[in-house]
Amino acid sequence: MSVEQPFGHAGTRLHEWMFDTAMGHRMFGREGGSTGVDNDLAEESWEGIGCEIMGRGKFHTASGPIPPDWEGYWGPNPPFHTPVVVLTRHPREDLAMEGGTTFHFRDADPAEALAEARRLAGDLDVRLGGGVRTLRTFLDADLVDHLHVVVVPVVLGRGERLWDGLEGLEERLDVRMVAGDSGVTHVIGTRPSA
Amino acid sequence: MSVEQPFGHAGTRLHEWMFDTAMGHRMFGREGGSTGVDNDLAEESWEGIGCEIMGRGKFHTASGPIPPDWEGYWGPNPPFHTPVVVLTRHPREDLAMEGGTTFHFRDADPAEALAEARRLAGDLDVRLGGGVRTLRTFLDADLVDHLHVVVVPVVLGRGERLWDGLEGLEERLDVRMVAGDSGVTHVIGTRPSA
Repeated sequence: MSVEQPFGHAGTRLHEWMFDTAMGHRMFGREGGSTGVDNDLAEESWEGIGCEIMGRGKFHTASGPIPPDWEGYWGPNPPFHTPVVVLTRHPREDLAMEGGTTFHFRDADPAEALAEARRLAGDLDVRLGGGVRTLRTFLDADLVDHLHVVVVPVVLGRGERLWDGLEGLEERLDVRMVAGDSGVTHVIGTRPSA
Repeated sequence: MSVEQPFGHAGTRLHEWMFDTAMGHRMFGREGGSTGVDNDLAEESWEGIGCEIMGRGKFHTASGPIPPDWEGYWGPNPPFHTPVVVLTRHPREDLAMEGGTTFHFRDADPAEALAEARRLAGDLDVRLGGGVRTLRTFLDADLVDHLHVVVVPVVLGRGERLWDGLEGLEERLDVRMVAGDSGVTHVIGTRPSA
C-alpha cells in the first residue's frame, strides 16, 4: 500500500461491486447502475450521516506528517458533504472543501474522536469509514452499534486482518449475512440494544 | 484442538447449520429438519461420492501413531458408506466398518492420494473432506475442481487459516457466494473447464 496505490495489490477489486451500483454511478456523475441489494445497502451506508471518522491512511496512505498540499483522494468536491474527522498523530489545520466537506485532523483516541464526531454530526449518525486498523480499534473499544462489511470473493493473500483480536464479536453484535447481486456478501452487525 | 475436542473452542458452532438440515437430521436418525438452501447444498455434498480423502486430524485429532483401538469419531456405522483414504505418516491396516465404510491409511502426497481415491471411487467422484491443512494442500496443488466452504458468522480468533498461501485462487476457480437460510454463507468454487 502506498500513496499512489492506497489499496495495494487489491487495486479496485474490492470496490467494483460499489462502482456498479446506481449510487456508485451517481457518485461519479454517471447515469444508470444496478438497483438491487448491493445498491440498497450502499445507499443505506450514506443515509443520515452527519460526520465521518476515518483513519489517516484513508486520507493519505503513508506515515509521518501529511504533505501540506495534500487534499485527499476525492478531488475538490469530496463525496462526504459533512465534517470528517481524520485521525492522525500529526494534526494540521482544518481543510474546508467544496460541497460541505471539512476535514478535521485530530490526534485522539477512539472515544474522544467519537465524542467530537457526535458533536459535529448534530442529530445525525456518525460513520466510521475505515481503514481496517481504524475499524478494528473502534470494534475493540466496543464503540460500534452498526457494522457493514462487504466480503468480495478474492484471495488477496496478504493485508490487514479486520477480525484479528475480535474473538466473540458476534456475542456483542447480532450478525447476519446478506447475498449481494454481484457475487459479494454483506456482513451486517447490529447491537441488540441499538 | 484435541482428541476430545476436535474443533477446539469452536465446539459445535461451525456445524449447527448442518445439524439443522433434513440431511443432518437423517444422518443422526432424526425426522424433519430444514429443506432450504442449506439442506440442498448439504445433500449435494454427499451425492455421487465414491471415496473420501481426509486428513489424519479429521480421523483422530492428535499427532503420532493412531491408537490401535481408535475407529474414528463416527461410531460403528460411519456416514461415508464408501472407501475413505486417511492421510497419515503412520499407516496401519485397513479398517472395515459396518455399512460399507473402509478406512485406508496412507502416507501419500496429494496427487498419489487422489490417484488411489479415484481408483477406489470407480465411476463416482472423490470428496476431500478436510481438515483445513489437508484442503489447503490440495488447493495449493491445484487438484480441486469443485469447492464448497461454509462461512459461519462467528469470530473464532485463532485456528487454521484456509486461504493462507492461496492468493489468486479465484483465477483458477469461478467463485460465487450463496446465502444460506440459517445465517451462513456458502462459498462455491468451480473449475471453469470442469
